[in-house]
Amino acid sequence: MSAPNRATLWGRTLVDELEKGGLEAVCISPGSRSTPLTVAFAESDLEVFSQLDERSAAYFALGRARRTGEPTALVCTSGTAAANFHPAVIEANQARVPLLVLTADRPHELRDSGANQTIDQVKLYGDAVRWYAELPDPEADERKVRSLRTTAARALAETVGTPAGPVHLNCPFRKPLEPTETGAVPDSFAATPAGRGRTGAFVETDRGRPTLEDSSDAVADLADALAAADRPLFVAGPADPVERRDLEPATVFAVAERVGAPVVADPLSGLRFGEGATDGPVLGGYDAYADVAPEPDVVVRLGASPTSKPLRTALAAADADQYLLDPAGAWREATFTATDLLAATPSSVLVGVRERLRSAGDDAGADDEWLERFERAERVRWRCRDEALEPSALADAPFEGAVLATVFEDAPDPATVVVANSMPIRDADRFARPRDAELTVLGNRGASGIDGTTSTALGAGSATDDPLVFVTGDLSLYHDSNGLLAVQRCGVDATIVLLDNDGGGIFHELPIADFEPPFTDQFETPHGLEFERLAALYDLEFERVDPVDFAAAYRRSIESAGTQVLAVRFDAEASHRRRGVLAERTETAVADALERGR
Amino acid sequence: MSAPNRATLWGRTLVDELEKGGLEAVCISPGSRSTPLTVAFAESDLEVFSQLDERSAAYFALGRARRTGEPTALVCTSGTAAANFHPAVIEANQARVPLLVLTADRPHELRDSGANQTIDQVKLYGDAVRWYAELPDPEADERKVRSLRTTAARALAETVGTPAGPVHLNCPFRKPLEPTETGAVPDSFAATPAGRGRTGAFVETDRGRPTLEDSSDAVADLADALAAADRPLFVAGPADPVERRDLEPATVFAVAERVGAPVVADPLSGLRFGEGATDGPVLGGYDAYADVAPEPDVVVRLGASPTSKPLRTALAAADADQYLLDPAGAWREATFTATDLLAATPSSVLVGVRERLRSAGDDAGADDEWLERFERAERVRWRCRDEALEPSALADAPFEGAVLATVFEDAPDPATVVVANSMPIRDADRFARPRDAELTVLGNRGASGIDGTTSTALGAGSATDDPLVFVTGDLSLYHDSNGLLAVQRCGVDATIVLLDNDGGGIFHELPIADFEPPFTDQFETPHGLEFERLAALYDLEFERVDPVDFAAAYRRSIESAGTQVLAVRFDAEASHRRRGVLAERTETAVADALERGR
Repeated sequence: MSAPNRATLWGRTLVDELEKGGLEAVCISPGSRSTPLTVAFAESDLEVFSQLDERSAAYFALGRARRTGEPTALVCTSGTAAANFHPAVIEANQARVPLLVLTADRPHELRDSGANQTIDQVKLYGDAVRWYAELPDPEADERKVRSLRTTAARALAETVGTPAGPVHLNCPFRKPLEPTETGAVPDSFAATPAGRGRTGAFVETDRGRPTLEDSSDAVADLADALAAADRPLFVAGPADPVERRDLEPATVFAVAERVGAPVVADPLSGLRFGEGATDGPVLGGYDAYADVAPEPDVVVRLGASPTSKPLRTALAAADADQYLLDPAGAWREATFTATDLLAATPSSVLVGVRERLRSAGDDAGADDEWLERFERAERVRWRCRDEALEPSALADAPFEGAVLATVFEDAPDPATVVVANSMPIRDADRFARPRDAELTVLGNRGASGIDGTTSTALGAGSATDDPLVFVTGDLSLYHDSNGLLAVQRCGVDATIVLLDNDGGGIFHELPIADFEPPFTDQFETPHGLEFERLAALYDLEFERVDPVDFAAAYRRSIESAGTQVLAVRFDAEASHRRRGVLAERTETAVADALERGR
Repeated sequence: MSAPNRATLWGRTLVDELEKGGLEAVCISPGSRSTPLTVAFAESDLEVFSQLDERSAAYFALGRARRTGEPTALVCTSGTAAANFHPAVIEANQARVPLLVLTADRPHELRDSGANQTIDQVKLYGDAVRWYAELPDPEADERKVRSLRTTAARALAETVGTPAGPVHLNCPFRKPLEPTETGAVPDSFAATPAGRGRTGAFVETDRGRPTLEDSSDAVADLADALAAADRPLFVAGPADPVERRDLEPATVFAVAERVGAPVVADPLSGLRFGEGATDGPVLGGYDAYADVAPEPDVVVRLGASPTSKPLRTALAAADADQYLLDPAGAWREATFTATDLLAATPSSVLVGVRERLRSAGDDAGADDEWLERFERAERVRWRCRDEALEPSALADAPFEGAVLATVFEDAPDPATVVVANSMPIRDADRFARPRDAELTVLGNRGASGIDGTTSTALGAGSATDDPLVFVTGDLSLYHDSNGLLAVQRCGVDATIVLLDNDGGGIFHELPIADFEPPFTDQFETPHGLEFERLAALYDLEFERVDPVDFAAAYRRSIESAGTQVLAVRFDAEASHRRRGVLAERTETAVADALERGR
């Protein structure tokens, strides 16, 4: 009896195991060596995306996994294709996003032989992956097939371990690669696992997560510290997708309210937007007043390092005990002023703290005025912002922050909002007010690159039916321009907000701006690209929008089908000055208000 | 007395040493952490290119170094920027192209701390570099500065070692990064090397290359084998840039003629085009007749594995002694049928062989008919091609090979011709006839990716005043579309020949083409891109050309200033059939001619 050849069966077995293990989507870049994987995925019930540029493919998969918290798989052929995944693998590593990277490879004996399209793919991503495994040559050998299924199940499970992240399986195949029938291979591939009476995955993996018990000393210490604190503060930095799913915002808010602590919420923390974000103690305006804010004595920190530099600087300068809550125990705090690490899920720690505080009596908590002063600072901060957003003020002095303010204020509920690095995420941090709406806000803050953001956004958009808003600078949009092909290929409907200042606007914020040359040629680097032409290339609607008209254009785009690019042009230098003026005015106003209230 | 800060001085010292060591060009991607390097390069007399997408930047530098054989430096900021260099670093490794990669990094203590844009850059490219070094924190310490200069000089020298290739220096910097004056740093930076009375580089490096003496046994054995051979054959695969400079084609031709051996010359070998290529024993049409060609008994192989698969297969099947000449001793021969490796420069070996053969008497050499039969095969092969190029034939059955034939036949003399991977290089191999013109033909055959080719071409074009012709498929052009920005930014004047068959034409050559689904969706992957819009984005002239009108359009483009894209549309499936028909007709005609002549 004839059966498909061994490469085909090997690919099918691998994909079967991944599917039974719960994988839902894969992003494939076309190639020859990967044929057995591509064929098996195309036959499966998984959602299959096809992307031509592997760099974009990897960021697309990353975006999807970032949105869902579930692994997305990636497939490419042998050679430099695999190296194009590297930037996204690094981002997934640092941002703790589950990615399963499957690189096809030539057979072992061709390595370092001068064979075509054969590179050294062994441990290609170095230490940036949670696990690396090398599959053996496909063969209908029972132990090999059992090893294949175990390896596949394990690889998938490792992507959502603690911390979540990328896993790399290198998969050598020999010809024939296409699904030809051959009489030479027995069908022991399928028989092996069935013989064990399994129904789901061959290896069921139920991974525990590190927790601390209510009764543990560490939880007791933190509860006591919070109860005794005069000026407690919660700081929530960017959350990884698994953590975001694990931790109920209500748990954070309950503990914070119990002890009278404000919650500083990064736009990527999952706490600035959503239920409880406006009637709880959530702060969003701290970047503007961190320098003049009162100093905490106990700080509880969740997530990664926050986006706001004034905040980080203020925390480093505070004479406070700082507790990091991180299940992976990574000490993600680069000012090295944190004092305690609780290497357990924030959820387990905070539930424990809440329980202990219940029995702590009514004297637990902050000074009377502590929280109230932050609330006052917030009110002043947002009033200053709103003044700058007035049409007349905006017409005189347009700035990118006004667009970011509107993007968040007027985003549909629910929505996915992806914000590019460099200035957009900083302006989102500064100008996006907390809001009681289900906005899932995402950005690539693991390594904070400007590469791959378009694909990250479209990948996130592909994961749900939520409207997708993507805010990007012109350099980011150029860098991953290839990613725009996914709008049509993957059927994503997005509103793309382009803040176009023709070059690296962020450099105006840096001291090098005072050195000319080389500032314009080597840092700002104006490129002169006409983005309507880029939009035309990818069949996107394009509209150039004046800052004062942005809100209306944004609303129209949200309400219409298809993908629109709303391009708002700014002068980077004028924006820089405007930000400076606004920051100074706001800081003075907040300082005055705090002073008066003392 | 005040002096620039330590980061600035450190950068200047590094760049000074590289400049004194002979570095001529650098490609910089803008970023903050790399400011001290960027400032120093901008102040230097080096040629400085600025590229926004690091992936394109790296391939641009690769292209330039591939054209010149001299190292080109690359600079990027910390984070995923550095990972975007990875594909080009791999190509440089495998293709032996000298590249000096300078990645800026955050200070050591910020690694794995959760600090922004801080990734693990230590040995980021694994074993793909010739040398990796980590610079210390900049400091005005005499030993450190001497170490910096030694490391810089050594890094540069390693790029052109044997084999040439990429070198990675990871360069941490701490603030201030901009060239501010500060009183805190003594100017021992400059004093250190001057105190030694040096005028050039601090460390003069004169690297020897492995050679074998005329009198060595290995050279004698090879000379004897060639003298005794009835059917000797030279096979020249793709040459790396250092080898291309080192080996005089006349030396190869002289030995080959002395023993009556034909020289099979890959289009990337440096032997198919140039002086002696048409009146010597050079073969260019072997891909069409390798299956029916007479079998050699002694084969001398130069360069990397040849592009032609029929040739590789025929060599593997031949009952022959096969000598590899490779200074790096890498056994680059993936059929594992080579029998002898001479790990020395081909130049030294062939000069030695020539000397020994001079004293071998007149009976040295091949059978009388041996060379004549190949010459007959060539004549028939090119006649068949020329028939297919007749306007009437072409109008009936257009195919990409006709364009490649014209590209080489009508290229100006001299010219640089860069050919993309996948089908274009294969069609160049098949349809480009040997020509007595100084055509420097380049392609990325190290890892044979379709990524980065546009930048490689433009980088090569930036290196000389030779006219530049770049032949690419549509997938390659899409993959590195960002690279087109360099046309304006770097002032390159090119003729871009686009063979557009809307997807991966090469897959039609593979057995998977018979499996539908998944063939169209997952392999051919039509993208529907309108490349005139891509040309508009980058302000390039665009012309859609019918295959029969190509020669005229090509001539016009060559003669005009500015960069033109000549897009010739093909149907991949029809082209595949046409190639098949032509190959069969040619093989039959050659076989008949050989049969008749016996």
